[in-house]
Amino acid sequence: MKHYDVIIIGESAAGVVAATTARKYYPGKNILIVRDVLHVPIPCGIPYIYGTAHDAMKNLIPVENIEKSNKLEALVGKVEAIDKVNKTISICDDLYGYDRLVIATGSKPIIPPIKGVDLENVFVVEKNTDYLQKLYDELKNVKDVVVIGGGFIGCEMAEEIKKYDNNLNVTIVEMQDHLLKIVYDEEFCILAEDALRTLNINILLNEQVKELSGDKKIKEVKLVSGKTLKADLVVLGIGAKANIDLARQAGLEIGLGNGIKVNRYMVTSDEAIFACGDCADKDSFFDHKVSMLKLASIATMEARIVGANLFKYTRINRGVVGCFSTVLNGNVFAAAGLNEDEAARKGFEIVTGVAESINRHPGLMPGGQNLKVKLLFEKGTRGIVGGEIYGAYSGGELINAISAFISNEMTADEIVIFQAGTHPALTASPIAYQLVNAAENALIKLINDQC
Amino acid sequence: MKHYDVIIIGESAAGVVAATTARKYYPGKNILIVRDVLHVPIPCGIPYIYGTAHDAMKNLIPVENIEKSNKLEALVGKVEAIDKVNKTISICDDLYGYDRLVIATGSKPIIPPIKGVDLENVFVVEKNTDYLQKLYDELKNVKDVVVIGGGFIGCEMAEEIKKYDNNLNVTIVEMQDHLLKIVYDEEFCILAEDALRTLNINILLNEQVKELSGDKKIKEVKLVSGKTLKADLVVLGIGAKANIDLARQAGLEIGLGNGIKVNRYMVTSDEAIFACGDCADKDSFFDHKVSMLKLASIATMEARIVGANLFKYTRINRGVVGCFSTVLNGNVFAAAGLNEDEAARKGFEIVTGVAESINRHPGLMPGGQNLKVKLLFEKGTRGIVGGEIYGAYSGGELINAISAFISNEMTADEIVIFQAGTHPALTASPIAYQLVNAAENALIKLINDQC
Repeated sequence: MKHYDVIIIGESAAGVVAATTARKYYPGKNILIVRDVLHVPIPCGIPYIYGTAHDAMKNLIPVENIEKSNKLEALVGKVEAIDKVNKTISICDDLYGYDRLVIATGSKPIIPPIKGVDLENVFVVEKNTDYLQKLYDELKNVKDVVVIGGGFIGCEMAEEIKKYDNNLNVTIVEMQDHLLKIVYDEEFCILAEDALRTLNINILLNEQVKELSGDKKIKEVKLVSGKTLKADLVVLGIGAKANIDLARQAGLEIGLGNGIKVNRYMVTSDEAIFACGDCADKDSFFDHKVSMLKLASIATMEARIVGANLFKYTRINRGVVGCFSTVLNGNVFAAAGLNEDEAARKGFEIVTGVAESINRHPGLMPGGQNLKVKLLFEKGTRGIVGGEIYGAYSGGELINAISAFISNEMTADEIVIFQAGTHPALTASPIAYQLVNAAENALIKLINDQC
Repeated sequence: MKHYDVIIIGESAAGVVAATTARKYYPGKNILIVRDVLHVPIPCGIPYIYGTAHDAMKNLIPVENIEKSNKLEALVGKVEAIDKVNKTISICDDLYGYDRLVIATGSKPIIPPIKGVDLENVFVVEKNTDYLQKLYDELKNVKDVVVIGGGFIGCEMAEEIKKYDNNLNVTIVEMQDHLLKIVYDEEFCILAEDALRTLNINILLNEQVKELSGDKKIKEVKLVSGKTLKADLVVLGIGAKANIDLARQAGLEIGLGNGIKVNRYMVTSDEAIFACGDCADKDSFFDHKVSMLKLASIATMEARIVGANLFKYTRINRGVVGCFSTVLNGNVFAAAGLNEDEAARKGFEIVTGVAESINRHPGLMPGGQNLKVKLLFEKGTRGIVGGEIYGAYSGGELINAISAFISNEMTADEIVIFQAGTHPALTASPIAYQLVNAAENALIKLINDQC
């Protein structure tokens, strides 16, 4: 039986970063990383296979380079079981011993319990290149495409499939009254819907799928409302759940969010076993209640904690802030922290400030695009709890300034005197700078509210 | 004599923001704003008149709109004197009374004490549209252009003049051994020089100007080294000094940086008089020693303090962080906080971390460009004191995340678990994300250093 100081199960974003971080902080340890697929897709890049990369093999995490440059032993195979007592894992009846084990098994797409999900040409968003390529290869044979679920993945898949072939009839079906409602406030959701409608993507809101029907192959999507949509291909993008099969089998504790329970050092109920990424349970930065967010950026943050903590606890998980972005029809939609609904559910009373301007000064500078920033503050402390951005590509990094504000619990009073770098070719003028002006517009409301 | 609750002298970035902030927080007060030019150029936009806007009148702060929408009374005229005792200012022999006065008179270009600076076609970077237009109009008549001073303004002017007419022979003369040395570490300075040389701009380093010579009009720039440069037009871009004429005349205290001395509420030595922007003395966020930085983003930060504090102190100036950016030949150069030289001068021992990657994932996503991030940490506290960025346009906002890190005094330990939003079309992958990886690369050095 071969023995390793560290074994990492899973080689997507979390597994890779846990391994590279461990290598940095424990240069002498021998580390084995195990993956169950030969090729590992970049998870957030999956939608862009369809209209941009045109090949699932062009959207890969370069695991072999990473293994080599970080001196990781690697193995492709399915881990069948974890033996906590003897500290071994088994792969094809071979045992591998560990001092520390990291579970980074990620998530699995949620398949809704409706009739017809097993019909041909009904796809989920599975992190498997062959499967993803099969979806790609089918696109040339179809005309009507229905995307079920209007979250990030659903919106991005719809846009990229339309980009693949503009003649395809692409429809998004969403249960809620708006697309992306889990992330954005209504006014941003409407902007996202406008962006997709401009691309001639059909959007059905407040509609639930009753049944997928067809004869072997998908033919129709039947909605609870009685409507029927023609469909040659269906993409189910209704979310993902933690992949906890191995952990459950090993008897590790499972948390309230149905992920592997971990403490703030990312240690599971077994002291030698860590978990990170989509398979691990998460709690919110804001109130430490369970968070269901699954993002590669959260996974890698957790993995950096795991990699450093393996043999000495030096990092603490402060909980999920949540910071994400997408691009729809050339417009950035980015968010950090809580939106108004989430804040209300958590019991926060919120005051918002909005500022909008072109991201150049003067406006005639090349490449200028409108950029809208909304900030959310808690009334009592005036602390920032969220932000949303719409418009220019520069918003993709601006959201990270907001994430920095949130993780430092800055107040509106502090943000209004934030020193931002501005430049004619890159940003709004310091007079019109959206980030600071949004805070100023909220602060005056906060102050007047107290009078 | 007309009396105002607030009079603001100067209507560039600082004056405008002091006025709009005052209007927000003191809606009932009557406010007069006085400017000495009819049209107010956007200061940072000045270089872009020459190769992009092609008209000084297209680079204006829309002061009249701002006055109208903020219910400001406005006056164009030169303030001749301030009478502190009687709380009046005089313009063309008319007196105007104030309860609170804001001095936002900005800065004046430094004119070096060398022979020939008064020759025709020797220009400074003066915030005056007629003057700036005259420089523009002369470009069509010249062939050899020499820019004296390789700071931001000098580099931007050189590139834009070259963009105006690629046949012009443009040379930058810099005293120091690198361009932009006041802001960047050497490796970034070299990248900036490469960017400008690619545009066929000549760069002379370690060269000092001895004399400008010509017969009425400039003909030659003579260097101390003995070299002589042909010149039909010279731009002097060697910096700016606080415009304190009025303040000095009024007997206000002047600070160590030769600006108007202010306390942390931005109040001058006279309790009814505030100052902000380039005319006000500044101290450093890091050690509260004098800072000579003059930036529109600092000016507006100070103006937000002044506007809110006029009748009730609610905001404190924490000192200059310094956050700025430019674009040279399509590459962003951005910096926040201290560089290695400045840190050493202030007595900090520094550890740096660098990370570089394309700002897309996978790399084939459209619009991808290399992005390099360098972070500087103080050894003892592991606190961040600076950051530099080179490459993609997204760096223009990424520098503001770094500015947020600095102003919150985050440590390397905190930054490595920063939750950044990442997206295939906007940023590097969360595995390769430069901001966090640069911190990780510094932190491992900091930790090893302690062992």
